Amino acid sequence: MSILTRPILEISIEKLISNFKYLSSMSKGAISASVVKDNAYGIGAVEVASALYNQANCRHFFVAHAVEAERIYPFVKDASIYVLQGIGEDSLELFQKLKLIPVISSPEQLAFWNSNKIKDIKPALQIDTGLNRLGFREQDLADVNINEQDFSLLMSHLSCADIKDHFLNNRQLEKFKSLKQQYFPNTPASLAASDGVFLGKDFDFDMVRLGAAVYGINTVPYRQNIIQNIIKIKAPILQISTLDTGDFAGYDASYKAMSKRKIAIVSIGYGDGLPRILSNTGKVFFGHESAPIIGRISMDNTICDITNIPNLSVGDLATIVDDFYTIDDLGTDAQTIGYEILSRFGKNPRFAFKYA
Amino acid sequence: MSILTRPILEISIEKLISNFKYLSSMSKGAISASVVKDNAYGIGAVEVASALYNQANCRHFFVAHAVEAERIYPFVKDASIYVLQGIGEDSLELFQKLKLIPVISSPEQLAFWNSNKIKDIKPALQIDTGLNRLGFREQDLADVNINEQDFSLLMSHLSCADIKDHFLNNRQLEKFKSLKQQYFPNTPASLAASDGVFLGKDFDFDMVRLGAAVYGINTVPYRQNIIQNIIKIKAPILQISTLDTGDFAGYDASYKAMSKRKIAIVSIGYGDGLPRILSNTGKVFFGHESAPIIGRISMDNTICDITNIPNLSVGDLATIVDDFYTIDDLGTDAQTIGYEILSRFGKNPRFAFKYA
Repeated sequence: MSILTRPILEISIEKLISNFKYLSSMSKGAISASVVKDNAYGIGAVEVASALYNQANCRHFFVAHAVEAERIYPFVKDASIYVLQGIGEDSLELFQKLKLIPVISSPEQLAFWNSNKIKDIKPALQIDTGLNRLGFREQDLADVNINEQDFSLLMSHLSCADIKDHFLNNRQLEKFKSLKQQYFPNTPASLAASDGVFLGKDFDFDMVRLGAAVYGINTVPYRQNIIQNIIKIKAPILQISTLDTGDFAGYDASYKAMSKRKIAIVSIGYGDGLPRILSNTGKVFFGHESAPIIGRISMDNTICDITNIPNLSVGDLATIVDDFYTIDDLGTDAQTIGYEILSRFGKNPRFAFKYA
Repeated sequence: MSILTRPILEISIEKLISNFKYLSSMSKGAISASVVKDNAYGIGAVEVASALYNQANCRHFFVAHAVEAERIYPFVKDASIYVLQGIGEDSLELFQKLKLIPVISSPEQLAFWNSNKIKDIKPALQIDTGLNRLGFREQDLADVNINEQDFSLLMSHLSCADIKDHFLNNRQLEKFKSLKQQYFPNTPASLAASDGVFLGKDFDFDMVRLGAAVYGINTVPYRQNIIQNIIKIKAPILQISTLDTGDFAGYDASYKAMSKRKIAIVSIGYGDGLPRILSNTGKVFFGHESAPIIGRISMDNTICDITNIPNLSVGDLATIVDDFYTIDDLGTDAQTIGYEILSRFGKNPRFAFKYA
């Protein structure tokens, strides 16, 4: 018997590299950039960026904030690091120090950049083509005085690339092509993220931005996932006990035993990223056998019903995520998407991170 | 106009201290311990523990995992640090190095401790009195050979202390008193957490464990909150734009404008802790005016409708949480509790943390 207390996050760097190379092969001719924002969706931007730099020759990285670039910079020094949320007074110093490349998405940002240019750096310009999130609108391009040669990359972002036949995909593509032709005919361009590369060569342009799919998320749920899961999440049983008929379990007594039950207290909770909405509805696994979560998930612990699973001991590991029950599956059960789930799990230093 | 990109988490240390002292005054005679697990629910365990140590003379701290103790240890060196999830092979070294106090909750943990005792350390023993989570069951106490003098603290945890008249409160109290009398008559005891201190002097015993309420969460929703909010969360507008009738916004085009709208892209998303379940239903504020969240919340950005709010500029700060719309309010809107919300927000280093 092992006595363990910490949840475990296992990341297969080998499969990560394999996913990246597979996705790259789908958009041959385009540069494959790696999106490692939000600490590489929680699984460790330093480890991910280092691996992609060293083992997949990746030289273009996207983060959301300059503070995220700061963490990976020492490991990818001669790479280009683009910062999606742009540049501001609260990040200017880091941009200057690390020669980061801002993604400029509004006329106000452009004005800020023009007053704070950094030597040898040409920013990316983001235009909006229908997502109606960040990006210059068509009218902005007409209104603002823009010199194409001041920019190193033209980019936009698709809104419905996870839905193969959505009419907005082609509408955004046509708009991107048209605005590029009009304002940036000679600038390298990027439109597709992980889901966009599945839409065909027309969407590739000069650079694709590979994020979620590299981490094993199925970004194209309309088809069988051909991407490998790279994540396993486990947590040890701290205690095994029984409930008698009528006993309650967890906060606010939301679970009441209708018969004698055997329960395990597992060392993972919403503080670790297991969504509390799975209280009384979710499940964990031992082997491939599922054990229902009973009662409220608490910050550090989850109670599960192991009545039907023989031979468990304190210290055995419950499986939260594995190849047969992925981040996406957990996302569906938790009424959200794998992206949000993955982003939550990696954020707690309680996890023992294991890279293999 | 300021150009800003990062979300901001403001924490009032002054109000934190005030909350702690107020709660302490409710349980005079008992030691007030501070619960700083999960990085003090995300707001910074180092800052919280240092402040309580220096300004409120707190000398007893509870964390969930030894790795959490490691962070606060240098700032509270002569204090007692209890580790709620107990001790195991994956944490033994830290316990030895920092002289941490394990909370022993199962016979298996006790056996592990007996084989790995640390000089001069007497662990706490947790017994279960009805929560049916971690803790020795009554039968365990009868079965296992326990020497009272080996322990420094007897503790248990209430399941329904947030519901004043719940019958389980007194049932747990009576069970705790009875087991203490039988097995630990001379050991200091602790039953109440932040919500338990509102149940009356009978629940105080020798130590109360103050956590959530110190951070401004209303742990006793059956009464008006007399605890001060200590948290403000803000995020800058990155861009202001318009939607024409029929335009979509955000991923999967889940929002469609029925009339011309003015929108703001705010630099906060689910990666920062804003629950994605608030897509198309939540709100942010400018002053006290609410701006509905439209479309899907994405990892880094949230789109909101500012049609009815005049005079906004890029760089202005949207309010996500404030005194008038607290962590608890956001929790209710996101179909969960303030605890889970607070625990999420603090985990992203993108936040500019401001302690005042």
